[in-house]
This record gives sequence, C-alpha cells and structure tokens, in this order.
Amino acid sequence: MKAVGLVVEYNPFHNGHLHHVIKAKEDSEADVVIAVMSGSFLQRGEPALVSKRVRAEMALQAGVDIVVELPYGYAVQTAPYFAEGAVRLLTALQCATLHFGSEEGDIDRFLQLNAFMKKNDHDYQQQIKAFLKKGYAYPRASAEAFAFLHEARTQLPLSEPNNILGYHYVQQIDAQASPMEPLTTLRIAANYHDEDMGEGTIASATSIRKALLHKKEVDHVLPASTARLLDYYKQTHGHVHFWENYYSYLKYQILTRTPAELEQIAECEEGLEYRLIETGLQATSFSDWLTRLKTKRYTKTRLQRLFVHLLTNTTKEEMATVRSNRENDYIRLLGMSETGKSYLNQYKKAFSLPVVTREAELRHYGVLASLDQRATACYWLTKPGALHSEAMKQEFQATPLFLKNS
Amino acid sequence: MKAVGLVVEYNPFHNGHLHHVIKAKEDSEADVVIAVMSGSFLQRGEPALVSKRVRAEMALQAGVDIVVELPYGYAVQTAPYFAEGAVRLLTALQCATLHFGSEEGDIDRFLQLNAFMKKNDHDYQQQIKAFLKKGYAYPRASAEAFAFLHEARTQLPLSEPNNILGYHYVQQIDAQASPMEPLTTLRIAANYHDEDMGEGTIASATSIRKALLHKKEVDHVLPASTARLLDYYKQTHGHVHFWENYYSYLKYQILTRTPAELEQIAECEEGLEYRLIETGLQATSFSDWLTRLKTKRYTKTRLQRLFVHLLTNTTKEEMATVRSNRENDYIRLLGMSETGKSYLNQYKKAFSLPVVTREAELRHYGVLASLDQRATACYWLTKPGALHSEAMKQEFQATPLFLKNS
Repeated sequence: MKAVGLVVEYNPFHNGHLHHVIKAKEDSEADVVIAVMSGSFLQRGEPALVSKRVRAEMALQAGVDIVVELPYGYAVQTAPYFAEGAVRLLTALQCATLHFGSEEGDIDRFLQLNAFMKKNDHDYQQQIKAFLKKGYAYPRASAEAFAFLHEARTQLPLSEPNNILGYHYVQQIDAQASPMEPLTTLRIAANYHDEDMGEGTIASATSIRKALLHKKEVDHVLPASTARLLDYYKQTHGHVHFWENYYSYLKYQILTRTPAELEQIAECEEGLEYRLIETGLQATSFSDWLTRLKTKRYTKTRLQRLFVHLLTNTTKEEMATVRSNRENDYIRLLGMSETGKSYLNQYKKAFSLPVVTREAELRHYGVLASLDQRATACYWLTKPGALHSEAMKQEFQATPLFLKNS
Repeated sequence: MKAVGLVVEYNPFHNGHLHHVIKAKEDSEADVVIAVMSGSFLQRGEPALVSKRVRAEMALQAGVDIVVELPYGYAVQTAPYFAEGAVRLLTALQCATLHFGSEEGDIDRFLQLNAFMKKNDHDYQQQIKAFLKKGYAYPRASAEAFAFLHEARTQLPLSEPNNILGYHYVQQIDAQASPMEPLTTLRIAANYHDEDMGEGTIASATSIRKALLHKKEVDHVLPASTARLLDYYKQTHGHVHFWENYYSYLKYQILTRTPAELEQIAECEEGLEYRLIETGLQATSFSDWLTRLKTKRYTKTRLQRLFVHLLTNTTKEEMATVRSNRENDYIRLLGMSETGKSYLNQYKKAFSLPVVTREAELRHYGVLASLDQRATACYWLTKPGALHSEAMKQEFQATPLFLKNS
C-alpha cells in the first residue's frame, strides 16, 4: 500500500480541504491518505474551533484514512519547526509522498529555491539579521531578506503563507534525508487570508471562522459531514472555542505572575512581559488586549502564539528541552478508516516512532508529551467545574476513532 | 484622645462583634475604636464574604472609628504571624489598649502563661518537635506540647481558637515591647466553631456564613446596617464570595504547573504539590478537593491557606522576603468616622508607620504591598471580563470611607 501525507489543521474541514484530499490521492496514486494535524491549538496561535477528536472525525468522514496529531511543541511554532515536526511524522509513517497546496502550484519552483537557499544560506541569515535590526518582525525580515537575495532568480513569492510552509516542507525533506517525494497543487478559489466568504462552495478557513463567530450560515462551504459534526458539537458542548473563552485565564496569569515569572514563558522576549501586564490591565476583552499589545515588530500570529504559551504555561526551558530531545517523538493516533487500519497493521512495525493511541499514555513520554497533555487540559477550560474533569477524562481515555466503510 | 485597638475579620460583622466594640470601649475607657482587619482573604484561608471596603463600612456603621487592613503577608498566616502584624499596626497607631474576646475572659491567665512560656520556651519547642514527629499537625502538636508542659500550672485552654490568638497578642505585645495594655472579655453565647445558628441574636460568623451559603435568613443575628450592606452587595455584584467561586482558577493552576513550580508556593511542603495535583484531577468541586486533600497531618485551615497562596501565586520566597523586611510595613487606611478622622489628624505625625490611603499607592512599597495588590486583583476574579477591570479600578482608586455623624 502506498501512502500520501498531508499537513493540516482542518479548522474546520471545508470543501477546499476535500478538494485537496482528492487531488493528493490522485496526484500521488496513493492507496492511503495520512493527515498530520495540529491538536488543540494551531500554528497561528489560536484554540481550534472544535476538539482535535472531532476535527479528526471530519477528516475521516471526508476520505482521509489516518489522522495523527502534530505535537504542541511543533504545532504552535514558526513555519520551520512546524514543518520539521510534520515531515518527521509523515516520514516515520512511511509516506511515499508529501502533498501540499500552495499559491505557487509548481513543485520545481520549491526544489529550485531549496537548492539555491542551501547554497546561499550564510548570506540569507546575514540579511535577515540586518532586517531584524531595522525593527522588522521575523516573518517580514525573512521575506525581505529572501526578496533581496533571490529576486533575480526565481519568482516563488514567500510572502504567501502556503508557499512559506511548502518551502519549509521541501527544505525539511531534504535536511532530514526523508525518502518522501514532495508534490504540490495550486490552491483554488480562496486565499488563506480572505476574511469574507464568497458565494461559491469554496471559502478560506479564516472566513468560515469569522462567519461562525458572527453566527452566520456556513453550510454551503462545508461537506455535509462537517456541517453535521459542527452542529452536534455546538449542541453537546454549548459552544465552539474562540480566544475570548480563555480570556479570564490569560488575565489571571498576568494578575498573579511577576515580570520575572512571565519572562520564562516561551516567546516572551525583549520585555514583552511588561507590555503584557501593562496592556492586560487596560484591556476589556481578548481582542482588545491583542490590539493593544501589537507593535510593528510583532505579527498578530507571533503574539497569539505567546498567548497560547501563556495559557498553557509553556516555558522557554520546556521548548528548549523539546528541541534537544527529538528522540522522544511519538505518533499520536487520533483516528483511522478501515483502509487506514489495514495500513497500520501492515506497516506499524516499520514505523520509526512508537504509536500512542490514548492521551493518558503520553505520561510515559517526555516533555513534548506533557505539553500535549497540558494543552488538552487547557483546551477544555471552557467547561466549568465537574464538566471540565469529565471532558478531560473522555479525551485522556478515548481510543482512536475508527470509521467503518459505509 | 485615647484609642483601643481590636483585631478583627468581620466576616461578616454581627451582633457578637457589636457587643465586643461596646465592651472594648467601655473596658478601656477609650474615645476611639481602631480595628485592624484582614483584607480580601482571611486567617483561616478563605475569601472574605464581601470586599474589605464593605466590611470596613459595616464596622464604621456599628461604631468602629478607624479600620485599617492587616496586610495579606500577616493575615493569611498562622496565629503567631497574624498576631505579630496586628500588634505592630495597633502599636504604630498609638493605641493605649488591645482588647480581645476570648473563651477564657481573664487577662491574668494570659499574662501568667506568657511569663511561664518565656521561661520554658526551650522545653516547649522540644515538645512540639516530638509531637510533630509523631505525625500531628502543627496546631495539634503545639496544643499537645502546651498541655504536656503546662497542665499542672494554669488552666488556660489553648485548644480554643480565641485563646490561642489572645495568647499570641499578649506574647507579641511583650516581644515587641509595645506600650499597649492587653485586655480581654469573655465571648458570649456562641462558640467560634459553632456551625448551626441558634434562636438568639448572637451567632458565630461560621454559622452565619453557612446560613448564607444555604441562602437562609440571617438578619436576626446582624446589626440592621450589616444586613442592609449585605443585601446591597448581593444586588450590586450578584454574589457573595465563597471558595467555589475561585475553584476554576485553582484547578487551572494545577493543570498548568509542574510539581517543581507548585513546590515554590508558600506552605506547599513535604510533597503536598503531588497531592494537590493528584486530588485536584479527581475533584469535582472545591469542597470535594479539600476533603480529598485532607490528612491527619494538615488541618483544614492549613490547607485552605495553601489554596489562598496557590490562587494568588504567593511563593515561599515572597513570604521569606516579607518576614525579613519588616521596615516595609505600612498602615492601609480603609475607613474612618468623624472621631476617627480627628484622631488621625491629631496623631498621624506620631505614627511609626506611613499611612496609605489608596490601594494604587501600594506600588511604592515592597513585596508586602504587592501581595496585597495581587490578593485584591484575585479577589475580584469572581467578575468576568471587563467587569473585573472595573472592580479592580474602583478598589485601586478609592479613597478611604468617611462616615459622618448622623
């Protein structure tokens, strides 16, 4: 059996994702589609709309065969670390191909760029430093450095979010000497950052989340199974998860921590602890806080990741431990189809990382695993009192979803 | 003008307290009654039912002339530290007398005991150690050591809570070479620990809190002014403050802190951090958690104080700093009557500590003051979102209450 790997967040799973699953299977001629998916919190520093378990179910219902979780220590990170984790897991799962959507659409551009950047890495790093010194945020500094270095040679615009991620997948496949073949397809119809949903059946996840926040209709851009699962989630839990649901805990943190304690939080750098306290005391909501905290130097994404680490109390020290202990990686299996199960049965022994089927088992692993457990516990802070314990118990004890052929 | 000092919590102010105010003024022949009162959290490790400002108003309405706050660093402590702070403040305020209610009622017993204990301190400490080794909690160990050492000589039972406090006031007046004269009066009608309210007009604060928790009638045991202020508080804020209101934040702490981090919390000793996590994950409410956490070694009061420190993130290091920096003490003025104002105008210059009139000014003081600010911020965690900021702003900016003669 041949497997194709996807790197996803499915927040929520929509028609664009469905298109990608079909295209990936087609392009790679694979029998099995494996998705490595962010867990409770996402790369752009947000709580997932619905739990990772339900997002895994959305994926299985739409044709994905295996869903595994990208650990928090990789997922709530800048693109290079995010890509590193995703490539490690998909390689361990013996995927033949990594397939990603991009604004570019031509894999050769990515391969050429990787070759070029390897050759010119020293110059590139120097340029980034120079732009950082000018006060640019890292994503812009690296984009400017890239443009500066690269303009004449190719036209792969790294300002586009999926091009950046794609470039880092290709770069990591090379750096990790992974046997996976990278493939890409052009993203259709919706841009990643589009905030407004059009009339068509494809819309960006950003615009869908915005519509959900304002309680607008989204069913026409979702597979029927996603729409049903979203409705059921809202009925069962009474809410989907937005940042505002966690605001009181973030505020509690800055009310009770000294600047020295806050400075230990991952990504809390260059005096951000003082700005966090100052702006936090003035703010009246999460979005107000984020607006007050924002400066030219830091992107919204960067600050939201800081908020995730603040919420989960993830320290610089823990992140450093995670980065220096890659041997503690694991494959956390969230769900599988019948085809997925056959694949696992057939290839499990060949996997280069252990498969963890229940959240509770993570206690046998290292800091990377404890961050996942903590993130899950924090994710359910939306539930009061005994309901929180109940939600945690369910998440910690649940075995992977299994979707039978219908 | 002659002043009598009282050490109080007024949680809430009731008819027994009213009796004490009148008796204290009478016994001491004082013109002015000064109460030093615990702030947001109490000696027995509980949030105060209503804010310190409203409790100060209850006291002023019932005849107290000046209310000052006993800082958190003294208040949420065992009897010796609690007494140390109270005696320091009342001495600084130039009180001629310290007047306390006790189960004993005869001040000579306290003076005799203090003389005896000074002479036999070494033996007493040895006995305490011996009882602690047997696994007794500190209050019981000290009570047993006391009985063992003292049985034949006097009959002042230190098992009674107000006798213990009274003994420590007398002991501290002596140790601090305070010119205050200690006086005591027999507590009437209700025992401190009585959980059930009788038919009379005097009931213990414990029984009143219990009745309030179960929404029972309490007006017959309260001065009319207290009853009115309690009603108004419930109308304005929608609640009075019980431990259950803070449960989610305590739980959040143990979900996101490592055992090593929890071990830094004040009073988190001998592996309690592991028990906190273990029992916290099983508990379904604050009271359930407390029950699960309880062992022979630790009293409920001791564990509740640990919970207060956990809520406010007060560390062992901070408490040690407070204890070694008594020169950073201050008098935080909460309220005054016209008589109180005259007294302050007349004697303020003679006070041995600075008077702080607004919570916000505390930022100019040391760790003791920052713990007070933090405790106030945590106290209002019962308010969601923007309402919390509003409540904090009011507390931080408010000037002391001033009650004009009617």
